[in-house]
Amino acid sequence: MTTTTSRLRDQSAVADTGRIEAFSDGVLAIALTLLILNVAVPSSAYGNLGSAVLRLWPAYVSFLASFAFIAVIWLNHHAAFRRIRSVDRALIWANMGLLLGAVIVPFPTALLANAFGSGTYASEQVATLVYALVGVFMAANWFVFFYAVHHHNHLAHEWVPRGIWRTERYRALLGIAVYVVAGALGVLVHPVIGLILFCVLPVFYALSSDGLPLGGANASGRERPVEPLDE
Amino acid sequence: MTTTTSRLRDQSAVADTGRIEAFSDGVLAIALTLLILNVAVPSSAYGNLGSAVLRLWPAYVSFLASFAFIAVIWLNHHAAFRRIRSVDRALIWANMGLLLGAVIVPFPTALLANAFGSGTYASEQVATLVYALVGVFMAANWFVFFYAVHHHNHLAHEWVPRGIWRTERYRALLGIAVYVVAGALGVLVHPVIGLILFCVLPVFYALSSDGLPLGGANASGRERPVEPLDE
Amino acid sequence: MTTTTSRLRDQSAVADTGRIEAFSDGVLAIALTLLILNVAVPSSAYGNLGSAVLRLWPAYVSFLASFAFIAVIWLNHHAAFRRIRSVDRALIWANMGLLLGAVIVPFPTALLANAFGSGTYASEQVATLVYALVGVFMAANWFVFFYAVHHHNHLAHEWVPRGIWRTERYRALLGIAVYVVAGALGVLVHPVIGLILFCVLPVFYALSSDGLPLGGANASGRERPVEPLDE
Amino acid sequence: MTTTTSRLRDQSAVADTGRIEAFSDGVLAIALTLLILNVAVPSSAYGNLGSAVLRLWPAYVSFLASFAFIAVIWLNHHAAFRRIRSVDRALIWANMGLLLGAVIVPFPTALLANAFGSGTYASEQVATLVYALVGVFMAANWFVFFYAVHHHNHLAHEWVPRGIWRTERYRALLGIAVYVVAGALGVLVHPVIGLILFCVLPVFYALSSDGLPLGGANASGRERPVEPLDE
Repeated sequence: MTTTTSRLRDQSAVADTGRIEAFSDGVLAIALTLLILNVAVPSSAYGNLGSAVLRLWPAYVSFLASFAFIAVIWLNHHAAFRRIRSVDRALIWANMGLLLGAVIVPFPTALLANAFGSGTYASEQVATLVYALVGVFMAANWFVFFYAVHHHNHLAHEWVPRGIWRTERYRALLGIAVYVVAGALGVLVHPVIGLILFCVLPVFYALSSDGLPLGGANASGRERPVEPLDE
Repeated sequence: MTTTTSRLRDQSAVADTGRIEAFSDGVLAIALTLLILNVAVPSSAYGNLGSAVLRLWPAYVSFLASFAFIAVIWLNHHAAFRRIRSVDRALIWANMGLLLGAVIVPFPTALLANAFGSGTYASEQVATLVYALVGVFMAANWFVFFYAVHHHNHLAHEWVPRGIWRTERYRALLGIAVYVVAGALGVLVHPVIGLILFCVLPVFYALSSDGLPLGGANASGRERPVEPLDE
Repeated sequence: MTTTTSRLRDQSAVADTGRIEAFSDGVLAIALTLLILNVAVPSSAYGNLGSAVLRLWPAYVSFLASFAFIAVIWLNHHAAFRRIRSVDRALIWANMGLLLGAVIVPFPTALLANAFGSGTYASEQVATLVYALVGVFMAANWFVFFYAVHHHNHLAHEWVPRGIWRTERYRALLGIAVYVVAGALGVLVHPVIGLILFCVLPVFYALSSDGLPLGGANASGRERPVEPLDE
Repeated sequence: MTTTTSRLRDQSAVADTGRIEAFSDGVLAIALTLLILNVAVPSSAYGNLGSAVLRLWPAYVSFLASFAFIAVIWLNHHAAFRRIRSVDRALIWANMGLLLGAVIVPFPTALLANAFGSGTYASEQVATLVYALVGVFMAANWFVFFYAVHHHNHLAHEWVPRGIWRTERYRALLGIAVYVVAGALGVLVHPVIGLILFCVLPVFYALSSDGLPLGGANASGRERPVEPLDE
């Protein structure tokens, strides 16, 4: 009986992070989907639609970069919350910071698409700089988030080794550094380098995540502590 | 056995608020994310993108104010529904009022951004007035919502002291007063004062919320009544 | 033990409707929130924002009518699915019909707002006609939906009296008739009558719903069959 | 007792796919609902709204084609995840591919609507070609997804016959072929043929899905393995 009820009590704690996860899922899903609104052919171009569709390549590239950017936020968010069993006010606000970082992404994406599509070289530099700043802001928010979990360690599941949150903070610092470098290269060398890096970085960042094991059998972290049941 | 089944029955009641919470999460997440659509550089400005991005500051400030506004609605909604175990028709309609208040926020946000960005002093006054009215409307909806819970007290969990709903109504009245003052200062003294207050008020409003305890251990209010299990 | 596991099995069937409910919640929440995008002051009007905000009244009225329209769809959807325990392919498609009816609402809403805001009398008649047709289409979809549940009665919970689905079909037919009348009055007498009816009808339609009892104690329909537990 | 806890453990694995399902539901719901934003009467047409509403038929047809397209994605996604009990990193990325395919749909939908509405014959050909390419891309993503499940078979429920994933891959290949043919007919014979096929194909594709049985009683696949409980 005891094991059943303690599991049920645990489920009720999980339900508590359930709503913040659902809200975050909603925000990330919408930010991801709104990106496509930036990809639009001007109605005057339907006389020669073929070349107009091809000339839109900066919009496609910016869209893909930001799709990957937000997809990786979701991936990391999912991995982090599998290790967290309840939330307090500090964590809710740190999570709002993450959502703020995700919600603003359509703005620099539009800057990037328009600057490379019809702007001057200087405007490409500005757009690259703004996009890099948003990347820095996002990574800084991850740093704050992991800092909050690390110092409110009772919010994590018992089976989570505390050192993980320190590792995650280092990953966040690495993210800041990497977007500073991408912005600097984009402004000082050539904006196209920035554009390429914005596409490539999310993928590498995702691969460096150890939040989600590659095997499926132990993919469900919540199961690990259940072993001693029902002997 | 009895405790297990009564908990399960309780979970089924929780599932009943589950769907209204999911719908509300969806609406709030979308209202939050749509705000970014107001932040856009006109395509004619890509010749000098740097200064155009800087001149957009009223859009950024309005965006941040409304992001905080809706984030606090979610925070209060989350805190309120942790104390509510099922809903009746009155509560569903009171909740629709809250969602209505949240859904309209992008409109006054756009007014604020455009008035401070390219309008006259008089238009800044009008935008500040409209934004304050929406703040009053939102707080009035909270008052109705807490009034409904207070008078349908069987909808709350048994462990919730009834006095809480009276306190929450006073907080709602305070919210009305505060947005009346912000609007008056914005119209009569200077619209920028209104703009600043719209950014600051949500944060203070959130801090005054006692809905969510600061500690994580007892953060899951639903657990409190479970103590007598498993002696 | 049997009662626990049979309840758990029942919960798993509920989880099956869970995903269609979540998807529908998402669609309805977005359709509801997108409505505000139709309410926008043209940027040229910021010289005299006060009168521009007042002249926007048709946009406000249309917004409120459609907000109530979609809110009532959600209310009815919520009430219907509390009586349904699993879905088959026919019901999934009938549900897609409901979502289609909800998703298109922003289009006639924009027609209504623009026609009353800056169109001719004839354009007000057209917009009223189109809005009424969407109302008819929505009610027709409810008819199909309730027809499907009635003829796949094993999808409903055992405690649901079968006659309910017949009553619901009559309510759907009433909805068709009511929107036909509203459209006819709007086109033949005066469009403003149509506009007023579009605001009032959802509210009356909601009040006629017996899907959700007024008391909270027995508001959770799913609990009713559980009485014989744990004597 | 053992059966109860093993079911609970199973539920916890289900909860793990729960979040990816919720996120996918959100993205699909938004992509579906954003489609209506392409259906808009230009504000200059409110002098003669009646004929303007009728001339918008390409927007209605494209909207319906893409509504069915995304509805079928959701249907297949729902059917697939009822057979999957947990996810690993490969499956999460394959799922992101599916979401990418769904998110971009509003773009070719707008191309189609505008080309048939006000473009040249050549622009209709281009729009048909782009739409067909998106159909191919979507089917290719399904192929990758089912390939991933097939080769990470431990992610599926034990009662799922492994051959199903091979069948699903063949269906995905069929989808690729079918959209190649639709695009070729649209470009080489007449774009209207492509437009008609884009409306019809999702419906036939949905009917060919065996993922969801027609009867409701065994519609809940997850229940099948539970038979040996409580003898």
